[in-house]
Amino acid sequence: MTSSIAPLTTASPEELAERLAAATRDYAALQATGLKLDLTRGKPGSDQLDLSSELLGLPTSYKDRNGVDVRNYGGLDGLPELREIFADLLGVDADKVVAGGNSSLSMMYQVVTWMLLKGGPDSPRPWSEEPTVKFVCAVPGYDRHFTMLAELGIEMVTVPMRENGPDVEAVKALVADDPTVKGMWLVPTYANPTGSVVTTEVATELMAMPTAAPDFRILWDNAYAVHHLTDDETLSADALGLASEAGHPNRPIMFASTSKITFAGAGVACLAASQENRDWYLQRLGFAAIGPDKVNQLRHVELFGDADGVRAHMRKHRALIAPKFQAVQDALGARLDGLGIARWSKPIGGYFVDLDVLDGTAARVIELAKDAGIALTPAGSAFPHGKDPDDRNIRIAPTYPPLADVETAMAGVAVCVELAALEKLTA
Amino acid sequence: MTSSIAPLTTASPEELAERLAAATRDYAALQATGLKLDLTRGKPGSDQLDLSSELLGLPTSYKDRNGVDVRNYGGLDGLPELREIFADLLGVDADKVVAGGNSSLSMMYQVVTWMLLKGGPDSPRPWSEEPTVKFVCAVPGYDRHFTMLAELGIEMVTVPMRENGPDVEAVKALVADDPTVKGMWLVPTYANPTGSVVTTEVATELMAMPTAAPDFRILWDNAYAVHHLTDDETLSADALGLASEAGHPNRPIMFASTSKITFAGAGVACLAASQENRDWYLQRLGFAAIGPDKVNQLRHVELFGDADGVRAHMRKHRALIAPKFQAVQDALGARLDGLGIARWSKPIGGYFVDLDVLDGTAARVIELAKDAGIALTPAGSAFPHGKDPDDRNIRIAPTYPPLADVETAMAGVAVCVELAALEKLTA
Repeated sequence: MTSSIAPLTTASPEELAERLAAATRDYAALQATGLKLDLTRGKPGSDQLDLSSELLGLPTSYKDRNGVDVRNYGGLDGLPELREIFADLLGVDADKVVAGGNSSLSMMYQVVTWMLLKGGPDSPRPWSEEPTVKFVCAVPGYDRHFTMLAELGIEMVTVPMRENGPDVEAVKALVADDPTVKGMWLVPTYANPTGSVVTTEVATELMAMPTAAPDFRILWDNAYAVHHLTDDETLSADALGLASEAGHPNRPIMFASTSKITFAGAGVACLAASQENRDWYLQRLGFAAIGPDKVNQLRHVELFGDADGVRAHMRKHRALIAPKFQAVQDALGARLDGLGIARWSKPIGGYFVDLDVLDGTAARVIELAKDAGIALTPAGSAFPHGKDPDDRNIRIAPTYPPLADVETAMAGVAVCVELAALEKLTA
Repeated sequence: MTSSIAPLTTASPEELAERLAAATRDYAALQATGLKLDLTRGKPGSDQLDLSSELLGLPTSYKDRNGVDVRNYGGLDGLPELREIFADLLGVDADKVVAGGNSSLSMMYQVVTWMLLKGGPDSPRPWSEEPTVKFVCAVPGYDRHFTMLAELGIEMVTVPMRENGPDVEAVKALVADDPTVKGMWLVPTYANPTGSVVTTEVATELMAMPTAAPDFRILWDNAYAVHHLTDDETLSADALGLASEAGHPNRPIMFASTSKITFAGAGVACLAASQENRDWYLQRLGFAAIGPDKVNQLRHVELFGDADGVRAHMRKHRALIAPKFQAVQDALGARLDGLGIARWSKPIGGYFVDLDVLDGTAARVIELAKDAGIALTPAGSAFPHGKDPDDRNIRIAPTYPPLADVETAMAGVAVCVELAALEKLTA
């Protein structure tokens, strides 16, 4: 962050009073414009959905390459040709992939509930029979990961999220001696909301570290594996390979989907894991389902052809959304650069900008924004139980609104950030 | 069953020896034809799937009637217009329906696992915290209902399935005093495999009967609600209404799908229940999923228009499969009528013919058929843990093979039934 002007935190009371008066005027003007804008959800814009509109008329065939009629029952692990595309994108072998339905979140939920009800390949007993089950959660993180654990009675212990992934030393300290720590969440590439990318070094340590629980699982939610915003098309660390080399092949389970590639909610999801984990998953799945929607799988195969088709498609997404991410940078920078009351991520991929405001003002910023017609994700939502201990974190999701709205909304958010800081500094 | 000839069970040893020699010759001839036919699975034939081929080019729009973009996230309870179609077909209010993904089996699995992990509206505690959980299973029944319970550690107690539903007195005796009996399965219309239809009288008793468990659930799997084989288009009993009148509104949870209406595996499923159960389900679902595949839901709405569109579509199915069911009757009747060694259902809907052979010979019949190239569902599969105590039940699934194959296969099965009986009677 550049620092063209003096930080507010060192300003005199008179300067602060003056700036507060100015910010209050700006906020009143903002309110007067009667906005109704929404930056809450990491949803694709309709122009992004249009990129896949061909899907609505596909598939042209109803047989997969082996001649299987995709309209009928069967094929629990999904179409081979779709598994190959996912495998290529995730850097794994196709025989480690299960292609599923429209939701990777549901596949994660299945894995956690099945660990609870049945236990996994390395479990001494089902997790539900343990007195306590804990998960390591890097914060800020993805709200739905945390709410799922809360729903299922799993305790959450937090570690800080860094630019290169979770704080490995903190993770190691939590998992080394406590056998009730059974797993952790990780969004390895362009994390929600920080944009962090887990480096191969960090991944190596996470896959190799000793854990007291023999059935410790890293749920490797690679939701944004191919969602680049720059020419730097970062490759995700090879979680399965590293884990296998370290002697912990069953530790990671990968997830991904096309929710933010084709249609959010009508895409296809996948899981990738060791042979043993995959067999375990498919065995459980066989009691819960007869097979995935293979027609939708074939629809996606026809749209893309291969993994390079996906990569080319993602560059079209980038062309649509990179300007929105730039608009966030521009609006925040224009008003807040150098004030020392906010810092924000400059992600090179994914769906979010992570904004930290002055400690103790995040909820107030969100309230001010709401009263000016700008909906932001609720304060604390990137933390377990929705509680941000420092009340400073705000997740910005700029993809859904049109560019002009992002510009307007973020200029407004910047006003709110400054006003809330000044209120606090002058209180 | 007519009785044109004397039953084998009263035949003299000489007559039996003669018939055994004849049946053995017939079986050898059957083997010599080198068949490769499959009657194992209740799968639609490809001509049935062709009835919905228009789906492959739908939807033409990507907005529902309220203008919601179905390509994006959201709408956990499904498209209103699809819920209305299901509601009409099931005889319930649309506000009691949740329209989901491609599998009603998965929705059933969710309900059972959530009762285990969380408990329902009337549960003193989650079922997993009870020392034992038992389900009443009418037999013969649907194998996947039973395997799901076995997987989840739920014990099964059986009652006989009658023409008008489960033996109510037997059910009442099991549920009245034992609070560990938490639920039962029911396929109310054209049951798998018996073809039974639960009458309003039986349904009334099941919904009203006292149960020791306050959270007793009847999982009302109406998979074949509109799958008529005759002009008698039986209406299912009004489970939700009857339960509500009896003061047990949360007892039944209904399930249905279009798996055997449009594409098996690429259709849409639904659940219908009391407001309290529905809220409970949706609350749990909100932690496991972001929403169903609304594009596929709209695709189905466009194909059918309304519930009458579904009914008209089902008459086309009937035209294709009723002859196959007739072929089963003809083949079995031609060889076995009057022999007193077999009886079979004459279903007026659904997907199966239920064949009972001479006690102790079902496994042998299936083995003989297999050795003649005719695959039948494994012996005992319509019973918990795959164990038919009388070794007499065989489920015939005639929809998938072409009509000529059904004729050939069933003539062969009839030979096997007689041969196995004669082997036993002459042993």
